[in-house]
Amino acid sequence: MNKIYRVNMTDLTTSVEDCPAEWAGLGGRGLTSAIVAAEVPPACHPLGPNNKLVFSPGLLTGTPAANSGRLSAGAKSPLTGTIKESNAGGSAAQLFARLDIKALIIEGQPTEDAWYKLALSKDGVKIEKETALVGKGNFAVVEAVQAQKGKKTGVISIGPAGEWRMKAANISVMDPDGKLRSHGRGGLGAVMGAKKIKYITVDGEGAPAVKIADPEKFKTAARTFAKALLDHPVSGEGLPTYGTNILINVLNEAGGLPTKNFRYGQFEGHDKISGETMHDIITERGGKTKHGCHAGCIIQCSQEYVDASGVYVTSGFEYETIWGFGANCCIDNLDHIAEADHLMDDIGIDSIESAVIMGVAMEAGILPWGDGPGVNRLLREEIGKGTPLGRILGNGAAEVGVAYGLTRVPVVKGQGIPAYDPRSVKGIGITYATSTMGADHTAGYSVATNILKVGGDVDPLKKEGQVELSRNLQIATAAVDSTGLCLFVAFPVLDIPEALTAIVEMLNARFGLSLTGDDVTALGTSILKTEHAFNQAAGFTNAHDRLPEFFATEPVPPHNVVWDFTDAEIDEFWNF
Amino acid sequence: MNKIYRVNMTDLTTSVEDCPAEWAGLGGRGLTSAIVAAEVPPACHPLGPNNKLVFSPGLLTGTPAANSGRLSAGAKSPLTGTIKESNAGGSAAQLFARLDIKALIIEGQPTEDAWYKLALSKDGVKIEKETALVGKGNFAVVEAVQAQKGKKTGVISIGPAGEWRMKAANISVMDPDGKLRSHGRGGLGAVMGAKKIKYITVDGEGAPAVKIADPEKFKTAARTFAKALLDHPVSGEGLPTYGTNILINVLNEAGGLPTKNFRYGQFEGHDKISGETMHDIITERGGKTKHGCHAGCIIQCSQEYVDASGVYVTSGFEYETIWGFGANCCIDNLDHIAEADHLMDDIGIDSIESAVIMGVAMEAGILPWGDGPGVNRLLREEIGKGTPLGRILGNGAAEVGVAYGLTRVPVVKGQGIPAYDPRSVKGIGITYATSTMGADHTAGYSVATNILKVGGDVDPLKKEGQVELSRNLQIATAAVDSTGLCLFVAFPVLDIPEALTAIVEMLNARFGLSLTGDDVTALGTSILKTEHAFNQAAGFTNAHDRLPEFFATEPVPPHNVVWDFTDAEIDEFWNF
Repeated sequence: MNKIYRVNMTDLTTSVEDCPAEWAGLGGRGLTSAIVAAEVPPACHPLGPNNKLVFSPGLLTGTPAANSGRLSAGAKSPLTGTIKESNAGGSAAQLFARLDIKALIIEGQPTEDAWYKLALSKDGVKIEKETALVGKGNFAVVEAVQAQKGKKTGVISIGPAGEWRMKAANISVMDPDGKLRSHGRGGLGAVMGAKKIKYITVDGEGAPAVKIADPEKFKTAARTFAKALLDHPVSGEGLPTYGTNILINVLNEAGGLPTKNFRYGQFEGHDKISGETMHDIITERGGKTKHGCHAGCIIQCSQEYVDASGVYVTSGFEYETIWGFGANCCIDNLDHIAEADHLMDDIGIDSIESAVIMGVAMEAGILPWGDGPGVNRLLREEIGKGTPLGRILGNGAAEVGVAYGLTRVPVVKGQGIPAYDPRSVKGIGITYATSTMGADHTAGYSVATNILKVGGDVDPLKKEGQVELSRNLQIATAAVDSTGLCLFVAFPVLDIPEALTAIVEMLNARFGLSLTGDDVTALGTSILKTEHAFNQAAGFTNAHDRLPEFFATEPVPPHNVVWDFTDAEIDEFWNF
Repeated sequence: MNKIYRVNMTDLTTSVEDCPAEWAGLGGRGLTSAIVAAEVPPACHPLGPNNKLVFSPGLLTGTPAANSGRLSAGAKSPLTGTIKESNAGGSAAQLFARLDIKALIIEGQPTEDAWYKLALSKDGVKIEKETALVGKGNFAVVEAVQAQKGKKTGVISIGPAGEWRMKAANISVMDPDGKLRSHGRGGLGAVMGAKKIKYITVDGEGAPAVKIADPEKFKTAARTFAKALLDHPVSGEGLPTYGTNILINVLNEAGGLPTKNFRYGQFEGHDKISGETMHDIITERGGKTKHGCHAGCIIQCSQEYVDASGVYVTSGFEYETIWGFGANCCIDNLDHIAEADHLMDDIGIDSIESAVIMGVAMEAGILPWGDGPGVNRLLREEIGKGTPLGRILGNGAAEVGVAYGLTRVPVVKGQGIPAYDPRSVKGIGITYATSTMGADHTAGYSVATNILKVGGDVDPLKKEGQVELSRNLQIATAAVDSTGLCLFVAFPVLDIPEALTAIVEMLNARFGLSLTGDDVTALGTSILKTEHAFNQAAGFTNAHDRLPEFFATEPVPPHNVVWDFTDAEIDEFWNF
C-alpha cells in the first residue's frame, strides 16, 4: 500500500500522492494518528474546514492473516476535543488494501450547502454530488449502492445523525453480508457530515491481491497465529459461542456491571439479557449465533439476532450495547434492546454513547427507568427526526447532563463511560481517565487482567498495579490497532507467547522486514505519545484525566468501593 | 465589615466567623476570587456540592462615596468552567456593608429535592424552606418579599432559568425602586439553583452606618471623586443623557457593531435602536431617561423605558442588550427588544448571553433574521418553560452551536462574545481571549481607548499596543471591582489624575490606611494572578485563550479586517 488519496472538499479537487517515507512503516491507527497530528491544527473546531478525516487499513489488512480486516478512521473528535481513532470491521479495509491505498485524507469543507459522495476505485477517487440518499438511514444507502454497484462494493456511510453533525454520530461500514459495522465512538460521523459526504464507495474491481514479500514465511506465521486464536478459551470458545455478551454474567458476578446509571454493580435482570440467554433465544428462533464482521474472521463473535417470528433484527449485537440499554437503563428485555441496536445502526449513532445518553435521560426524568419502548421512541422519533430533544440526546451524554443541569453524568473528556464500573474494576478506570480519546474501554482493556485473568491477575478492587497494567495495555493496543487486526487477538497474545511472535513474523514476511517484539512496543509507545502531544497542544492537561466526582463519593454495591486514586497516582501514567 | 457568614446547604447549618487577617484588605472581586481560589477544588463540577457561591460588597460599599454600591458574586462558572466574578447594582451590597458582612459563602448541596431561602439580618443568617415562589419569575419574588418585609429589604433571587440550572442563568438583585439588576454573566444563577436557594433577603433593620476611620478626609476625597465623575464627558454627560446605549451610533460609526451574528461591523437599522432615538422615545412617551441602579449613583445611566401607552417595560436597558437583540439579530424595533429585556429579567437569564444565543439560533435556522416577536416567543415559550429547545437555548450560545453542529459561534471559553467586534476593535479582542472569565468586555474595556479615546488613543485596527492596553485595563478593573465602585468610574480615572487619587484617599480614610496608587495596581495584579492560577489548575492553558477560527478567516466590513494576532502575540499577555 503506497498511495495516499487526498480529497479537498473546499475546492472539490482530488489528488493521489505516494506515501512519504516517514509514514511508510505505519498503518491503521498509527497512520491516521500520525496524519491528524501532522496536518490538523490541534485547536481547530472539529466540524470546521481545518479538521481532516482520515481512513487507513492496517499493516496486515488484505493479507490472509486471520482477523486482519479492520479499517481505522481518525480525526479531531467533536465529542471529546481530543485526537480520535476508531476502527471497524466491514469489507472496505480489505478493498483499500487491494487498491494499494495507504490512506484516504478528506480535508476542507464545501462552502455551498450541498451533499456529496466519494467513489474509490483503481482509477482513483471521484467526488460526485448526492441528493437522493440525503436524509436517509444507513440501510437505505447500503441497499441503493448494492442495487447500483453490486454486493462486492464497499460502503462507508453516515445516517441522519452524521448529517446533523451530532457528536454521537458514527460512521458505518458495510460488512460482506450487507450488515453494518461502526466506527462508533468519538463522533466521527459528525466530521464526515461536516465534510458534507454522505457516503463513500470502494470498488475493488480489477485490483490485484496484496503483495507479500515472503509468502512461505507468512503462511507459517499465519497458521501459528490462527491456531493461537482458536486455542485460547476467550477467542476460541467464549466469544464464538456467546459473542461479547458473554460478559453480562461475568461482570455481574464481579460486581462491575454498571446499573441504573452507575448506581450499582449488579443488575437484578442480568439473566434475562445475558449471552447465555441470548444464545438460547437465537437458537430457538432460528437466527445465527456466529457471524464475522469481515472476511477472514475466525472468531465470529457477531451473530444474527432475529425476532420472535424469526425475522432478522440486528448483528454485531455487543455486550456494551446490551449492558448500556440493559443494566444501565434497567431494561431486561433483549428484544427491546435489539430493536434499539437496529435503530442506531440506521440512524448512525454510537450504541455505547447512546446507552449512556439514555441512562442520563432517565436520570433527568425524560423517561422512566426500565422503559424499553421509551428508549426506542426517543431513538426513532426524537434523535432520528432531529427534534430539539433529539439534538440534545444526539450530542452525547455530557450534553444531556448540561441541558438538564445534572452532575451524575458518567463521562470522561465528554465521552460516555462504557460497560465496566471503574470503582470495582479499577484498571479500566485508569484507562478511562488517561486514554488519549476520553472514556474508552478498548484503549487499554484492563478488564482482561482484572476480571478475565488473561495476561496475569491484578486484583480489580485494589489500586496496586493498575496504572502499569493500563499503560502496558494502552501501548500494546495502539500497536495492535495499527496492524488491522481485531483487538480480540489480544487475548491469545497476552497468554500465548507464540501469538505475538507470529504477528511480528507476519509483519516481517509481509514487508520484508526484521522487526522484533520490542519494535512493536516502540510503535505503540510512539503512537500514544504522538496522540498525547496533540491533545496537549489542543489544551488538555492532567486536570482532564479525571473521572466525574460522584465515583469518588458514591460507593458502588456489592463491594461498596469508591474510586480512590489520587490525582498524583493517575498522573504517574504519563511518566514513560 | 468583619464577619463572614457561612451557609452549608448539605447539612443546612449556618455559622458566622470573623474575617481572617489574610482577607481583611480585600472586598468585592478581590475577596470573592480569593475565597473561591482558596476553597473550591478547581476541577470540581460547577453544579456539584464542591462549588461555592460567594457574595461580597466592595471595600467602599456602604460609605457615602458616589457609585460605590456594587455587590460581587463569585464561584466556579458553569458556563466557562473558569473562576467567575460578576458584580451588580441593587440595594443588597449596602445592606451587607451595614450589617458588617464581609462575605456570604454558600457551600454544599441539599441531598433532598427541596427549595430554600436565606434570610440575612443583624441576628445572623437563617435557612428556611421555600415552596410558594418556586417556579416563579423574579418579579413575583420581589413583589412577595416587598409585601411581606417592606420595600427596604434587599432581595437576591433566581428565576426559572436558575432553578433549571441553565448555564446562562443570572442572579437578580432588587434595586431601591424594586427594579432588577443582574449578576449577569457566567451562569451564577445556575450555581445558586444547584444550591437550591430560590432567594435571599437582606434586612438592614437596626444595622448601624458603616464606620469611617477619618470622616473628614473621606468627605474631601469623596467630593473630589464625585466632581471628577460629573466633569468627565462620558460619565457626566453621555451616560446620564443616553445611557450606555449611546454606544450604538459610536460603534456603528467605528465599524465595530457586530451585525447578523458577527458578519458585518455596521447595521443598517442602527438609527432606529440608537441611544439618541431611545432618548426621544422615552421622553415622548413620558418615561424616565435617568435612573440609578443603587443609592448614591450620580451617573444615572439607567432609565425607565415605557411602551406606547406609557406603561413601564424595563430598566437597565443596556447597549449590549440592544446591540445583541438589535444589530446582532437584525431587529430594528426597540419595543421588541425592550420586551425581551423585561422577559429576561423575569426568567433570570443573562441578556448578553441570550443575545448571542439568539444570533446563533438564527444562524441555525430556528427563526429568521430580524424576527423580534420570534425571539420573545423563544424567551417566553421555550426558555421560560424549560422545553427541550429552551434547554438548548438557556444553556448558552456554545450549546446552541453544539446542538445544531455549527462553527460560526462567537464564544470564548464557552461564553458569548459581547457587543464589540474583535476584528475592528482589536484591543477588546485581546480581553475576550485572555480574560480569566471567558469573553467579557467589562474585564478590560479596551473600547475606551480604542474607540472613545479615553485614557489615550490606541488605533483599534492595528495590533500595536493592544496587549499592553488590555493588560493594564484588566489589572485596573480587577482593583476597581474590589472597591464596590461602578466600573464607569474608570472613565474619569483614566483621564483625570485626581479621580484615582481620590479613590485611594477614600480607601485610606475608610480603613485608616496609607495606600498609594501602586498598592491599587498590586491588588489588581494579584487578583488576576490568583484567578489565572485557579483556571490553570482547572485545566485551562494558553490554547484556550483563542477566538473562534472564523474571526481569522472572515474579514468584517466596512474595514474588511480579520483577527490577525498570532498565538504567541496573545500569549504575551500573561508575561507579567
